[in-house]
Amino acid sequence: MILDLDPNLSDREVEALSERLKKMKFTPVRQAGNRIALVQGVGKQVRKEAFLHLMGVKKVSNLEQKYKLASRLFHPEPTVIECRGKKLGGGHFFAIAGPCSIESKEQIDASAKAAREGGAVALRGGAFKPRTSPYEFQGMGEEGLKLLRDAGAAEGLLTVSEVMEPAQVELAARYVDILQVGARNMQNFSLLKELGKVKNPILLKRGFSATYQDLLMAAEYILAHGNPNVILCERGIRTFETYTRNTLDLNAVCALRELTHLPIVVDPSHGTGLRSFVGPMSLAAVAAGADGLIIEIHPQPDRSLSDAQQTISFEAFAKIMRDAGLIRQALDSKSVEL
Amino acid sequence: MILDLDPNLSDREVEALSERLKKMKFTPVRQAGNRIALVQGVGKQVRKEAFLHLMGVKKVSNLEQKYKLASRLFHPEPTVIECRGKKLGGGHFFAIAGPCSIESKEQIDASAKAAREGGAVALRGGAFKPRTSPYEFQGMGEEGLKLLRDAGAAEGLLTVSEVMEPAQVELAARYVDILQVGARNMQNFSLLKELGKVKNPILLKRGFSATYQDLLMAAEYILAHGNPNVILCERGIRTFETYTRNTLDLNAVCALRELTHLPIVVDPSHGTGLRSFVGPMSLAAVAAGADGLIIEIHPQPDRSLSDAQQTISFEAFAKIMRDAGLIRQALDSKSVEL
Amino acid sequence: MILDLDPNLSDREVEALSERLKKMKFTPVRQAGNRIALVQGVGKQVRKEAFLHLMGVKKVSNLEQKYKLASRLFHPEPTVIECRGKKLGGGHFFAIAGPCSIESKEQIDASAKAAREGGAVALRGGAFKPRTSPYEFQGMGEEGLKLLRDAGAAEGLLTVSEVMEPAQVELAARYVDILQVGARNMQNFSLLKELGKVKNPILLKRGFSATYQDLLMAAEYILAHGNPNVILCERGIRTFETYTRNTLDLNAVCALRELTHLPIVVDPSHGTGLRSFVGPMSLAAVAAGADGLIIEIHPQPDRSLSDAQQTISFEAFAKIMRDAGLIRQALDSKSVEL
Amino acid sequence: MILDLDPNLSDREVEALSERLKKMKFTPVRQAGNRIALVQGVGKQVRKEAFLHLMGVKKVSNLEQKYKLASRLFHPEPTVIECRGKKLGGGHFFAIAGPCSIESKEQIDASAKAAREGGAVALRGGAFKPRTSPYEFQGMGEEGLKLLRDAGAAEGLLTVSEVMEPAQVELAARYVDILQVGARNMQNFSLLKELGKVKNPILLKRGFSATYQDLLMAAEYILAHGNPNVILCERGIRTFETYTRNTLDLNAVCALRELTHLPIVVDPSHGTGLRSFVGPMSLAAVAAGADGLIIEIHPQPDRSLSDAQQTISFEAFAKIMRDAGLIRQALDSKSVEL
Repeated sequence: MILDLDPNLSDREVEALSERLKKMKFTPVRQAGNRIALVQGVGKQVRKEAFLHLMGVKKVSNLEQKYKLASRLFHPEPTVIECRGKKLGGGHFFAIAGPCSIESKEQIDASAKAAREGGAVALRGGAFKPRTSPYEFQGMGEEGLKLLRDAGAAEGLLTVSEVMEPAQVELAARYVDILQVGARNMQNFSLLKELGKVKNPILLKRGFSATYQDLLMAAEYILAHGNPNVILCERGIRTFETYTRNTLDLNAVCALRELTHLPIVVDPSHGTGLRSFVGPMSLAAVAAGADGLIIEIHPQPDRSLSDAQQTISFEAFAKIMRDAGLIRQALDSKSVEL
Repeated sequence: MILDLDPNLSDREVEALSERLKKMKFTPVRQAGNRIALVQGVGKQVRKEAFLHLMGVKKVSNLEQKYKLASRLFHPEPTVIECRGKKLGGGHFFAIAGPCSIESKEQIDASAKAAREGGAVALRGGAFKPRTSPYEFQGMGEEGLKLLRDAGAAEGLLTVSEVMEPAQVELAARYVDILQVGARNMQNFSLLKELGKVKNPILLKRGFSATYQDLLMAAEYILAHGNPNVILCERGIRTFETYTRNTLDLNAVCALRELTHLPIVVDPSHGTGLRSFVGPMSLAAVAAGADGLIIEIHPQPDRSLSDAQQTISFEAFAKIMRDAGLIRQALDSKSVEL
Repeated sequence: MILDLDPNLSDREVEALSERLKKMKFTPVRQAGNRIALVQGVGKQVRKEAFLHLMGVKKVSNLEQKYKLASRLFHPEPTVIECRGKKLGGGHFFAIAGPCSIESKEQIDASAKAAREGGAVALRGGAFKPRTSPYEFQGMGEEGLKLLRDAGAAEGLLTVSEVMEPAQVELAARYVDILQVGARNMQNFSLLKELGKVKNPILLKRGFSATYQDLLMAAEYILAHGNPNVILCERGIRTFETYTRNTLDLNAVCALRELTHLPIVVDPSHGTGLRSFVGPMSLAAVAAGADGLIIEIHPQPDRSLSDAQQTISFEAFAKIMRDAGLIRQALDSKSVEL
Repeated sequence: MILDLDPNLSDREVEALSERLKKMKFTPVRQAGNRIALVQGVGKQVRKEAFLHLMGVKKVSNLEQKYKLASRLFHPEPTVIECRGKKLGGGHFFAIAGPCSIESKEQIDASAKAAREGGAVALRGGAFKPRTSPYEFQGMGEEGLKLLRDAGAAEGLLTVSEVMEPAQVELAARYVDILQVGARNMQNFSLLKELGKVKNPILLKRGFSATYQDLLMAAEYILAHGNPNVILCERGIRTFETYTRNTLDLNAVCALRELTHLPIVVDPSHGTGLRSFVGPMSLAAVAAGADGLIIEIHPQPDRSLSDAQQTISFEAFAKIMRDAGLIRQALDSKSVEL
């Protein structure tokens, strides 16, 4: 339920109203424009009239959508996430690059340098690897996080790494700027709730077979638990086609743009699983209006300990970034809207 | 099986060799570079050695792929289709525009004018409509084909229309330049064989759940029956996502580029089913390297008798074409290859 | 639109009313219980009131569903198809067995004997094979149809064979009792219309990615063009799973039972593509309430010219039929309804 | 890698060999028939010859499959799980029934009574609910687990409840016999590893878009971390069909039977999402050879706080169990194998 308040209400008065709503067993979330969204405790038995007598409430509306805080309906302007002086989304295009797994200091340092030179804003690298098979390389753990932090700092890059369970969140947040939720954990609700309690931006990857609505409800878990900094990531879905590892779904960029104010990035590396597809699909993502890209790079792609077949070289990354820049220049920002 | 011939063989000698192979119950298809592909009659019991004694045969290779004439392996250069002085594919970008169904002379004439002004090379319009429900508008038939022909001629545009059964091919070929096979008929093998006998270029749409290999084998039916002018069209696949009518699969552009020499066009109208997606997905298709676009336009999109929700206005089409041109200028032709 | 008529109206009066409706440009289809369905020509501009003044019309209702004649709403009792003295559906379980392709007189005769001994009602065999690749065995054609007819006659079995284009319908109907539409042709509307004009029962296979509604609308094409004898066949859908050739969807049995009165058969051979799955999935189909089974058998399964890996032996077929009989005995006919 | 040992080796000698292998940084897992599987630490650089000199090693074989302990190749006999005197799998059919969520003492007690009367072996009930939306009922937590334990004890039933994160495992294991992993957590590897450390049987649900191999690799995580008691559960996959909530995939029963020795149960409630489908699909699962069923029941299905539309009444459950018993009687245990 959405309560539109008297625009002249002071912050203190709004605060008092929120406290009262909490005592009534609701979970109020304040929004721009003197508006309060009640995101929990509102069942079918609660009627709109019950709120109209509260001081300062001008109008009460029902929420039909299953996600609320993530919805563009109640937050028409695109969200710009600020992180250590860098702006992400809402016209601020950003690229994230780095290896699938952090393997050594040399590897991550070289990757950081190449990422920065290519124009990336952030360095990615996995320390805890969620491998489908229990017998594959499982990552360097905390030691990897330290290497990532140092490599990012040396090149002035933000850092991105994946967390896989609630207990890892506090540790990872100590070293890493942006915490990533992998596709397999998109509906790991315990993890999502924990990520709602930190301040780091969260890069939330779409599950293999998650609908756009599923993805937005997963984002809603994080938002509703207190963290407004969620970046959505399209990374390929499962279809009947087996030529590609996944089917990268660029329609997601258009759909999420309509449905939400959150920034949208595209991962053509996991999304296609094929090195030769990363370039053209990156450019397609940019042309479709994505806010950013996340790309796997490696000093020696063929020697990567994981995801070798989808990892590209530093030179290939630099070329993609140049071409992506040309496309963005060619299109004025309004051009993809009809 | 592929027979590489002595490069000094004359056309007449190659012809004589072909005749001999036909008597041996094979179906030889001549290819560039003095090469003959045996595309039928070659079972597991036929050994390569059997061909080596034939005059002029230098080398014999097996074909592992299920499609042969469509494969880039045996035809590395992209195919450029020529049709009434216009070139399609292989660097010659082409847009096709027009209404889903031909409804009236006014409608198709206005569409032709807008298509030409926007920069399209061809005018599309359905005369026989394959509607999922038997109770929906089924098209104007031959009368529609005449209107299409006249409207195209008036604006100097090629024409494109769908055929749905073998018996329609001869009639449609009398009026229309490019014959379209709809997604539902992609594996209508009787129709494909019939289309192998005409000279018109064929626009072959990918089935809802056809793999890239399925599409190429459907193309192979047409090629193997004698018509080399096949254009492949990605138009969306069926997935679990219901927000869009179909999931437009731009990975197909990259995959088909690797696998075949045939031109590849993208249909963002059917591929997404949503008007607001047509612009961004068109630009994404161009950035991914598509050879062309096919877009549904209508003088009054909301009044379209079919597919209204995915049909765009003339103005929107003109804007997409301008933006698509900017992207193609920005990218030199090599830029999407790594 | 549905017109409920005065129950005392004579056939002649109903006929006169139908004629009048035709002159009004509608397509009336008479249904049980003195009811007329208007299945064509009824657009949004036609109002219910327009029919109420017609003689004998008692009530007018709108039809919300896209399919009408196929719907259980307007035909609550299950359809029992009668064909040369045999009853199919509505409690009359029926099995169809035979080879994928008719290969020789010996092969089809032996298959007919095994089919009859196992308890099948009909013999299947393909004469025109819709192969995905143009280079695979394409069937024996009319010669095959004759062999099929003779083998069926010798064993007292109905015969089933596939038609692939409108022009084949008349030929096949001369030799074959039940005409089959393959999955790839489920939305070949020209073919469906042609099949609406014959009297043979039609075995309509679900397309690889056809929804239940798509299948029912395809059936509707046949029904609306005059042939009420349609049997629906579940034969596997395309999913991300690659272990099986297709994913046999037994939910279809329950769903179609709710939605339609038409008989439902299951094809575990194409549906799974794996010989070892045919037995258990056949029994599962029977337990789920299917009206029949269609199974590929061959005197020497491993030597089958097509679909060898999913074809079972005569002994395996006999065993499945015995077990299926035990399950049907165990369950009284009401047991699967809750 | 698989080491086949001298059959005369004593347990003590095998133990000593295992210790030595651990020092060599391998993870040995002892299997039936004096065989050791090395499930970790075996990279491409380790050659088979390295093991042949070890005392007692007779033969060394490579493992091609990505899962090993779960594979039927190395464990041909079906696993029978014993839990508090009850046997599950390997011919011991078992049904699990109960509400989606534990809501009150009355509700769970009544459900336990109905489950036992219907013939179930175990009582299910969710205490921590993984809801797709953060605003839906999230479960009773530990209080619910106590109610479940007491209700199960009163009726002599095993208990089953879901855990969602590693930190819940210890708590839940205190109250519950069988710990369930939900479909959304099938690849929550942190959770799987934790479940490898307890002794409780684990009911592992297949993810929405998990292949059979993915499911077996998830099971492998649990097995490789020390818990051999894994039950696999088919509960529907995501396809393009929207009539059902999911597409219950009974092919999984046949496929998993071939690939693994672990027990296989089917969940027709989540698998279809429709009450009217639960009966026929349960019987189909039994006919296909499933080892068990897991069904949602509720004293007042329409008032269930979650999953109401797929929950059946006590009477409906009793009827399904009677019919399932009839089918199992009708089929002797070998009948579904060909």
